[in-house]
Amino acid sequence: MKPEDDFVEKLRALLPGADSVLVGPGDDAAIVDRGAGPLAATTDLLVEGVDFFSDEDPQRLGRRAVSVSLSDLAAVGAQPEFFLLSIAFPPERGGAFALEVARGAAERAAQFGAHLVGGDLSSAPSVLLSVAFWGRPAGEPLRRSGASRGDSLYVSGHPGQAAAGLHLTRRLNAFAAQGSFPTLRFPEISAADQERLIDAYRDPMPRVALGLALARERLATAAIDVSDGVGIDAGRLARASGVRCVLERPRLPLSGALLSFATMEDLDPVDLFLAGGDDYELLFAVVEGEAERLTRAASGLDVPVRRIGRIERGEGAVLEGPEGIRNVADLGYDHFEART
Amino acid sequence: MKPEDDFVEKLRALLPGADSVLVGPGDDAAIVDRGAGPLAATTDLLVEGVDFFSDEDPQRLGRRAVSVSLSDLAAVGAQPEFFLLSIAFPPERGGAFALEVARGAAERAAQFGAHLVGGDLSSAPSVLLSVAFWGRPAGEPLRRSGASRGDSLYVSGHPGQAAAGLHLTRRLNAFAAQGSFPTLRFPEISAADQERLIDAYRDPMPRVALGLALARERLATAAIDVSDGVGIDAGRLARASGVRCVLERPRLPLSGALLSFATMEDLDPVDLFLAGGDDYELLFAVVEGEAERLTRAASGLDVPVRRIGRIERGEGAVLEGPEGIRNVADLGYDHFEART
Repeated sequence: MKPEDDFVEKLRALLPGADSVLVGPGDDAAIVDRGAGPLAATTDLLVEGVDFFSDEDPQRLGRRAVSVSLSDLAAVGAQPEFFLLSIAFPPERGGAFALEVARGAAERAAQFGAHLVGGDLSSAPSVLLSVAFWGRPAGEPLRRSGASRGDSLYVSGHPGQAAAGLHLTRRLNAFAAQGSFPTLRFPEISAADQERLIDAYRDPMPRVALGLALARERLATAAIDVSDGVGIDAGRLARASGVRCVLERPRLPLSGALLSFATMEDLDPVDLFLAGGDDYELLFAVVEGEAERLTRAASGLDVPVRRIGRIERGEGAVLEGPEGIRNVADLGYDHFEART
Repeated sequence: MKPEDDFVEKLRALLPGADSVLVGPGDDAAIVDRGAGPLAATTDLLVEGVDFFSDEDPQRLGRRAVSVSLSDLAAVGAQPEFFLLSIAFPPERGGAFALEVARGAAERAAQFGAHLVGGDLSSAPSVLLSVAFWGRPAGEPLRRSGASRGDSLYVSGHPGQAAAGLHLTRRLNAFAAQGSFPTLRFPEISAADQERLIDAYRDPMPRVALGLALARERLATAAIDVSDGVGIDAGRLARASGVRCVLERPRLPLSGALLSFATMEDLDPVDLFLAGGDDYELLFAVVEGEAERLTRAASGLDVPVRRIGRIERGEGAVLEGPEGIRNVADLGYDHFEART
């Protein structure tokens, strides 16, 4: 049997059966059973040396690839259903590498009720993952367009932590490259905070439940997931909606862990918050009268959300602070730069 | 505006509108409208240096990536509907490269009534394309399983021509590397045949109409697309169906172009037919009494199909010829080798 067929047999053994999966991995195409209604679909690439480090644990890599796409589905308010996973890798990594990636991916998807139904393998000079995920919109899909003057702007979680985690991971890799593995890695930050930051980067949890609630209960007028940075993604929401996003400096939810990290590295935590990227939080607009209903829904889901600004007439995204107004719509990650 | 947003705006301008596409490229996920019923989904990777040459024309590359996935949908008998396209490439190739790939991909899909609805871009050390395609099964989906003893085995088109085209392309690249561009490139083969072989490799047309007819009219008991080689893919159909595929040497549809090429290169055309890969033809099993109905359907579609053997009790795939019986289930492409 060829290595690819052998891989598919091992993968099938890993996957739980599901009534909705009529044909899973191992035929020319997967066949799944769906009721009527619209379909939400998204895809993401993760490239070695650009989106992750070469020594990343394969299961965590699989989880992360799936989380990135789940975050897109969250941003449109869709219930994840099925996904396809392709893995390109140097043959010397061995088939076990691909199987562990698939295992991590399938496990993360299962946490959200979704199934791995197929994929492709190829040799390549370096590792690349491609996930295509689809699901079912819960009510009217959330769009980037739809925000109006007078709406409030909210964000979930603590953007900037992933960027801090990426910095810490780079520093740890530099220690390792020198053959040094200090026990007390960063004495300026508590161990719990170090772990929180590193996990925010390496193993983000997508805001699927929040996205579903926003769509189902019609709480948001517009939404986007923060993958490239709050600044650039606020600019995208503003452009799609034909409005201006005003972020208010004192309202930004800068976590204690982020502040400790910024102090240690002598960086501005607001820059990390705005330009960091990799957060996979949701940024969304809410009609003013709905603030209470939103707060109740979010606290029922145990998801921290914070009002960070407002929607005005105009264009672009700005930060309003004690020093005045600053354009932030260009702060963030460009897909043609390496992040690692 | 960031280069990725600029790309999306240019891409949107290229794409025709479609009523079924509620949200196309440029939001977090695409939203498409579908009726009830099952969904067929497939994905394929194309890697530079493995699946295509570095100097491949970007539009043709896009067409080929889409054709590879369409061939999978053809093999399950599904009408193509929507696809996602991701492109990883070295930034020095420029955004125009990605746009031309997307243009070729969207044009090939449109020939089959399907729409590009989203994707992702990333920088990477070399080019990699990922296509995820889905569609609607026309009747009962065709499976690799389902063939029974007594069925006849058929193939469409002329497998082996793509492998010959790949050889010719390599030879042409070697001429070019030496700075030589002979006008009469391969005097042993007619110009039309050279073109036929090279096109079979670089720009295959998927057998979508045939796959739809096989499923809709319940003509085939099992089917697979020939992407890795008739030998290995016959072995896969045999394994999935729990039967043995017997290919009969005198029945193989070896084209005149393939025979000229094999004579010139002193290769066995049967080896090219069985082990070549990249054919994107359909290999399928038909109940004996349905031969006439199949011939009528295929000739109505102007698709050449040929009975090349039979299904027997047992396992594996063999070639039966004047010299006896030979195992062919391992003849073909392994996804961990480079093809270019």
